Amino acid sequence: MSRKRFDDMNCGVAQALDQVGDWWTLLIVRDAFFGSTRFAQFEESLGIAKNILSDRLRKLVDHQVLSKERLDEPGNRFEYRLTEKGRDLWIVLTAMRLWSDKWVFGRDKAPLVVAEQDTGRALTALLAVGEDGKPVDPSKLEWRAGPGATSKS
Amino acid sequence: MSRKRFDDMNCGVAQALDQVGDWWTLLIVRDAFFGSTRFAQFEESLGIAKNILSDRLRKLVDHQVLSKERLDEPGNRFEYRLTEKGRDLWIVLTAMRLWSDKWVFGRDKAPLVVAEQDTGRALTALLAVGEDGKPVDPSKLEWRAGPGATSKS
Repeated sequence: MSRKRFDDMNCGVAQALDQVGDWWTLLIVRDAFFGSTRFAQFEESLGIAKNILSDRLRKLVDHQVLSKERLDEPGNRFEYRLTEKGRDLWIVLTAMRLWSDKWVFGRDKAPLVVAEQDTGRALTALLAVGEDGKPVDPSKLEWRAGPGATSKS
Repeated sequence: MSRKRFDDMNCGVAQALDQVGDWWTLLIVRDAFFGSTRFAQFEESLGIAKNILSDRLRKLVDHQVLSKERLDEPGNRFEYRLTEKGRDLWIVLTAMRLWSDKWVFGRDKAPLVVAEQDTGRALTALLAVGEDGKPVDPSKLEWRAGPGATSKS
């Protein structure tokens, strides 16, 4: 009898890790959210070696998380900007940040608050919802093979 | 004039990466959610070298993401179980999975569906909410120094 398996290559967590899953890569993405666009800005902010930064930026461009555009100025300079795919990582960064606020810093020592500009209401949690936008009960979830699951005997 | 900075050591993303931020670590946590508890189960599922698995499990226990308990059976065996801190990583894993479903696999090829047991309603998104449980507008967010921000001149 064959059964469905979720192997590493066909797993969303593994795929995300493959594309953005090392320390530097997600911190580069984080810095891009904070407004860094140039090699020297990432380098200064992260204190990262040039060759490592260069490699990680290239991979992020290859994976279309960042776009690389030549600037119309002397010195053959480029800028790196988040693509739509890259901007969509904000939920991943937010999930990590909220986890750390709760479990590493403690919420009363959070280094960063993200809030609505107009109202000042802070973003304090991520709520799991279905297609209808209504919450799903996290205590009663199960997983099943999706349409792209690989079948193994 | 002094200004607030969010440096690497005092950043929630950096802290989460420090504790669970390598390929293997989050895949071990993922496998724990899928029910793995023993060294041999993680080893078989991940195809990971014994020394690397041993190191990563030790770190996860040190960080209290997993608990390690001696089993009352011959052979000096242990089992590893997610702590509350570890279980709270499900939002991080879910954020990564949903990102990959959208940007790597395509939603119609998702390998895994997570759904409510009773209703079958699939979890399809994470919604950013405030203390009141109501959504915050993701297009109108700004960040500011939190209570634990470090001040640098």
